[in-house]
Amino acid sequence: MGLAQQQLMAELEDRLGAGRLLCEEEDRRKYGRDETEDLQFDPDLVVLPSSTAEVAAVLELAARERIPVTPRGAGTGLSGGALPVRGGWVLSVERLNRIRRLDRENLVVEAEAGVVLGDLQRRLADEGLFYPPDPASRDSCLLGGTIAENSAGPRSCKYGPTRKWVLGLEAVLADGRIFRTGGDSRKNVAGYDLTQLLIGSEGTLAVVTAATLALRSQPTVRVSVALPFPDLAEAAGAVSRIFRLGFEPAACELLERRAIELVARHLDVPAQLSSCEASLFLELDGNDRDELLEAASELAEALGGSTDLEPIVALDESDQRRLWQIREGIAPAIKAHSSYKEADTVVPRSALADLIRAARRIAADEHLEAVAYGHAGDGNLHVNLLRGALAEDEWATRRARAERLLFEAVADLGGTVTGEHGIGWTQREYLPLVCGPTTLELMAAVKSAFDPAGILNPGKIFQES
Amino acid sequence: MGLAQQQLMAELEDRLGAGRLLCEEEDRRKYGRDETEDLQFDPDLVVLPSSTAEVAAVLELAARERIPVTPRGAGTGLSGGALPVRGGWVLSVERLNRIRRLDRENLVVEAEAGVVLGDLQRRLADEGLFYPPDPASRDSCLLGGTIAENSAGPRSCKYGPTRKWVLGLEAVLADGRIFRTGGDSRKNVAGYDLTQLLIGSEGTLAVVTAATLALRSQPTVRVSVALPFPDLAEAAGAVSRIFRLGFEPAACELLERRAIELVARHLDVPAQLSSCEASLFLELDGNDRDELLEAASELAEALGGSTDLEPIVALDESDQRRLWQIREGIAPAIKAHSSYKEADTVVPRSALADLIRAARRIAADEHLEAVAYGHAGDGNLHVNLLRGALAEDEWATRRARAERLLFEAVADLGGTVTGEHGIGWTQREYLPLVCGPTTLELMAAVKSAFDPAGILNPGKIFQES
Repeated sequence: MGLAQQQLMAELEDRLGAGRLLCEEEDRRKYGRDETEDLQFDPDLVVLPSSTAEVAAVLELAARERIPVTPRGAGTGLSGGALPVRGGWVLSVERLNRIRRLDRENLVVEAEAGVVLGDLQRRLADEGLFYPPDPASRDSCLLGGTIAENSAGPRSCKYGPTRKWVLGLEAVLADGRIFRTGGDSRKNVAGYDLTQLLIGSEGTLAVVTAATLALRSQPTVRVSVALPFPDLAEAAGAVSRIFRLGFEPAACELLERRAIELVARHLDVPAQLSSCEASLFLELDGNDRDELLEAASELAEALGGSTDLEPIVALDESDQRRLWQIREGIAPAIKAHSSYKEADTVVPRSALADLIRAARRIAADEHLEAVAYGHAGDGNLHVNLLRGALAEDEWATRRARAERLLFEAVADLGGTVTGEHGIGWTQREYLPLVCGPTTLELMAAVKSAFDPAGILNPGKIFQES
Repeated sequence: MGLAQQQLMAELEDRLGAGRLLCEEEDRRKYGRDETEDLQFDPDLVVLPSSTAEVAAVLELAARERIPVTPRGAGTGLSGGALPVRGGWVLSVERLNRIRRLDRENLVVEAEAGVVLGDLQRRLADEGLFYPPDPASRDSCLLGGTIAENSAGPRSCKYGPTRKWVLGLEAVLADGRIFRTGGDSRKNVAGYDLTQLLIGSEGTLAVVTAATLALRSQPTVRVSVALPFPDLAEAAGAVSRIFRLGFEPAACELLERRAIELVARHLDVPAQLSSCEASLFLELDGNDRDELLEAASELAEALGGSTDLEPIVALDESDQRRLWQIREGIAPAIKAHSSYKEADTVVPRSALADLIRAARRIAADEHLEAVAYGHAGDGNLHVNLLRGALAEDEWATRRARAERLLFEAVADLGGTVTGEHGIGWTQREYLPLVCGPTTLELMAAVKSAFDPAGILNPGKIFQES
């Protein structure tokens, strides 16, 4: 470490106090990866501010020294968004972990970016309150990360992604200035909606330090239904029908046969689910048990009419948990089975079957296997390309080719290249498939308006930054 | 008209064809006002393009000549947003009036900015489809205007404002370049969410020419409930309680005594409503009549427990219409009664009573009368300051003073200065009450990123443009 570097660290320590800087190799390795497959970009330094003022101090110093700063939550991201691909510092928000204010009267909470989402949800649930976004990483991911990526999860089907629940933000600009957007108001058209602009901007415009969230009362009853289908097209077709018929499931997930087969290596799976071509997992929620049961049986009848396969209706909490463990077991089961590359595809609901067929064809052409599952109600399927028996270099070439063809197919079907994982580092080349040059130019102009020096999370979203 | 001006008009006619330019004084007067009290800013010229390409042609020419362009829907705005305060051209989108595509399978519609909102809603309702935003101007306002102002209305209480329903936009930049944002996808985190940024930007960033909207199936049953309260604080307090108890009314409106008195001059009002201090008008919607009736009676019992005043439960469509005519009759009744200035206040629900008390006190101090009503479920009350017997100059001074004090009170209560009417021209001085200097600077930087020459709707939102 050179003298200038040592002086800078001393200055940082001076501003933040002791124990807020990590520069050992082990730490830098740890903060140099996330949950994306095979990425590693070590930061020069990891900084752990514990207040908004400290975040501001860090950014001020970084701006002065023109050091790139990459904000980071828990590192559960799936597109490399929190990795310092251009070096510099990682600014972890993990110590900004206070729930600042819970306004029970108005169903609003203000929490810092480093609060673990699941902790927040449980704390709220204890009081009968509900904050719906539920990415699979909920027990480790941080609120700030969910805002950066506009995280969603199964219940986005009824409740929408993170952006539907954020009323206001506190954030710090690349130059260290603290600002606020929005507020507590549920309706607000006072100036441009910078809250919405920051959500999903992947830490490239500002570092979000706290958020004001709208809450609702917790639904008191949930019913889960698993519907097996004898063929894929029928399962996919049922998805659009659910919404046309006016049902409003909290979650509507599709699992194709191969996904369930892989889970069945680790968990007990009911026979009708492991033997069918595709299943829909639905959750209904509300406050009236009889009403939900009636809706569940109407749903099963309306959708499963043409099949002899018995639907599973789960009422007990433990039965429901068992069902959803199957769904949540897919990603780890794939990970355990093979090297893989996950594509976060979105298409119109009516194109779900076309998407899966295209994925299978593209994968087969490259001697890969495609396994699709996910948030069918939102048209958002995670298509996993599996390596199988391919050698490392073959795998690298073929998966890249297949992934591009897959996203081209998605764009042709009127969809988009990421529903909830973000563009980050890994998806940059696909963004032009769904954004024209003028739109991309506007995005770059917005980036410059917020961060003219290009210090904040450089290298992300855009191909040439 | 000078020679240069004549040449320019010829060039415009050449691009658009005949009959697309209005320059008679009568037309310029008409397009020089909207529904805001007492504003008149005549454009030099009104341009009526009928396609996106024509909008682009108009803007290209205006950019070349550095002529300010103010986009306009139906002129139903309430903050002067569509008025050419810096002169130049008004670009009306009224002829971009096609529904381009109705995708019944995916519950998506793409419509042009000049489609009348009510026409679109009726067309959709014929097919059992529902697009919820319902500003009072629904039968005349244009889709483009509702996007510019992020319009809402009573049903925003359950369904949210316009921004919750727009998936993608087609728009034209100040320099004439056409671009698209978002798409058909219900989940999308591919780059910055320019769709959300444009919504509510009041035509200052781009001219929206078409929008892709998410739809849902039409609720098949509605029940309306009017609850009279013996005092204002109790009515206001009931609003927060509704949501804490887990009810989800489609609409939750508050009408104070004086508002109902004024309507009662024009319409029959049931005795218990005209004699009480404040009423809540609620709408419940769904697909099961018995369920809604049960919810309605639970609601009435939970909220009206302490009063002898009989709630009104309306099931028949005609009874419901009669109730909502009372609500919709308030604005015209105020207009008929007195000169007035309407403030589009938003506060946390728990502060509704404080807001009304503050409004009354502030108004009384200035010898004005305050009448409040509106979207209580969203904390969004329209506070009308009434002139009463004041002379013109007194009225001007006193209403300005009262309005500022009112918005200061709103900001102190943790609210905002406009929920659905926009900042436009009339509210600019109040924006700094709820946006700090850095936030305002960022908004101005965003404006420059989209419209560096400052040609599009100049003079709006910001005080110094």
